[in-house]
Amino acid sequence: MLRSCAARLRTLGVLRGLPAGRRAPGSEPRPALRLFSSEEVFLKDYSVPNPSWNKDLRLLFDQFTKKCEDGSWKRLSSYKRESAAMMKDFKTHFLDPEHMKEEQISQAQLFTRSFDEGLGFEYVMFYNDVEKRMVCLFQGGPYLEGAPGCLHGGAIATMVDVTLGTCAMIAGGIVMTANLNINYKRPVPLCSVVVINSQLDKVEGRKFFVSCNVQSVDEKTLYSEATGLFIKLKPSLT
Amino acid sequence: MLRSCAARLRTLGVLRGLPAGRRAPGSEPRPALRLFSSEEVFLKDYSVPNPSWNKDLRLLFDQFTKKCEDGSWKRLSSYKRESAAMMKDFKTHFLDPEHMKEEQISQAQLFTRSFDEGLGFEYVMFYNDVEKRMVCLFQGGPYLEGAPGCLHGGAIATMVDVTLGTCAMIAGGIVMTANLNINYKRPVPLCSVVVINSQLDKVEGRKFFVSCNVQSVDEKTLYSEATGLFIKLKPSLT
Repeated sequence: MLRSCAARLRTLGVLRGLPAGRRAPGSEPRPALRLFSSEEVFLKDYSVPNPSWNKDLRLLFDQFTKKCEDGSWKRLSSYKRESAAMMKDFKTHFLDPEHMKEEQISQAQLFTRSFDEGLGFEYVMFYNDVEKRMVCLFQGGPYLEGAPGCLHGGAIATMVDVTLGTCAMIAGGIVMTANLNINYKRPVPLCSVVVINSQLDKVEGRKFFVSCNVQSVDEKTLYSEATGLFIKLKPSLT
Repeated sequence: MLRSCAARLRTLGVLRGLPAGRRAPGSEPRPALRLFSSEEVFLKDYSVPNPSWNKDLRLLFDQFTKKCEDGSWKRLSSYKRESAAMMKDFKTHFLDPEHMKEEQISQAQLFTRSFDEGLGFEYVMFYNDVEKRMVCLFQGGPYLEGAPGCLHGGAIATMVDVTLGTCAMIAGGIVMTANLNINYKRPVPLCSVVVINSQLDKVEGRKFFVSCNVQSVDEKTLYSEATGLFIKLKPSLT
């Protein structure tokens, strides 16, 4: 399984207080990721405003950034990919790499960060550790179309997986998606912003039960509801 | 809802025997789509082999193409987007377009066809009308990564939605996704080929119950199982 957990792992850098990394020219300071190897990985943090973000997303980002001031909420950084060395480490443990050519390995990108700015998944997540809540602010770009003018159901499922999985991972460490159950209630207009509110509901041994809803910014429209079951990997696998 | 139904509608052109369209320079003959307006729409059919398809996908494509010779199976064509007029028609019926700027409308692309060749979703679907079965042959490219070397769970959910929804739509007309329930059992290696076998299980009024599994090409590995509930839209909405 292990789906999406790389994305979640990338976010842990901030939450676990890893040391700040070097600055690339023109970039802001950001933490290094040292989760799989000692190699320092310095990548652009995509969970900050860019010119494609619309007014709603910027406003919500500012509101949650303000909530971070007292430490009750934390913004999660988000990166496009791991280093080749990190990928190799991971594959050595889990996968038979015969399917991937070297060229494909070098091309690999995190699904939710693989679109050019504004065309695909624009999002940022904030976490409240006391309440075990994760909020994802998500603007689905024009390349995520399903029915004309509507966000694709698969794009919603993707962000639900990412949000629920990250919520479970912060509580439980490296987890894998075991089940996603999504009820779609209304179509999401393409290029609009939705808020995904998730929470950790229950822990039973290595099982982490999480749930979420997907709402409009004004909270008047409930687009979807979902539950997820994530399994914490055994220590030997992490 | 109506998620992904545009994609499914695009496929109906072939199944319903619509007339062949004009040929664009250098392209193969293909059917026109006339589902929402009288405007003829001529788009490239993406559900045929391209240089990014690996050996497994080509082999399976050839096997199913052979099954089409006696008419028991049919290959479904697949297009990148509708015409602007068709999108406008659709939005007039279902959505408030205030969220989308003209530029975004012109940029809109079907999620599963929005990647450059070989980087994202490479797939083709075949349908057996007698058995009410839909088979999707899917190769997930390097831009669909979740954990390093693994296909993202959201990418799998997306192709499950597309396959189940198309299976339901062929039986019921325009449908919307109401529920997706996916059990993830094993990680799918990035850039490998999987086979999604779906079938229509039951129809209750406007409710279409479908299910599928996601297997390796040699059928030895079961990656995922899923069920879906799709609702047929009322005639006034179609």
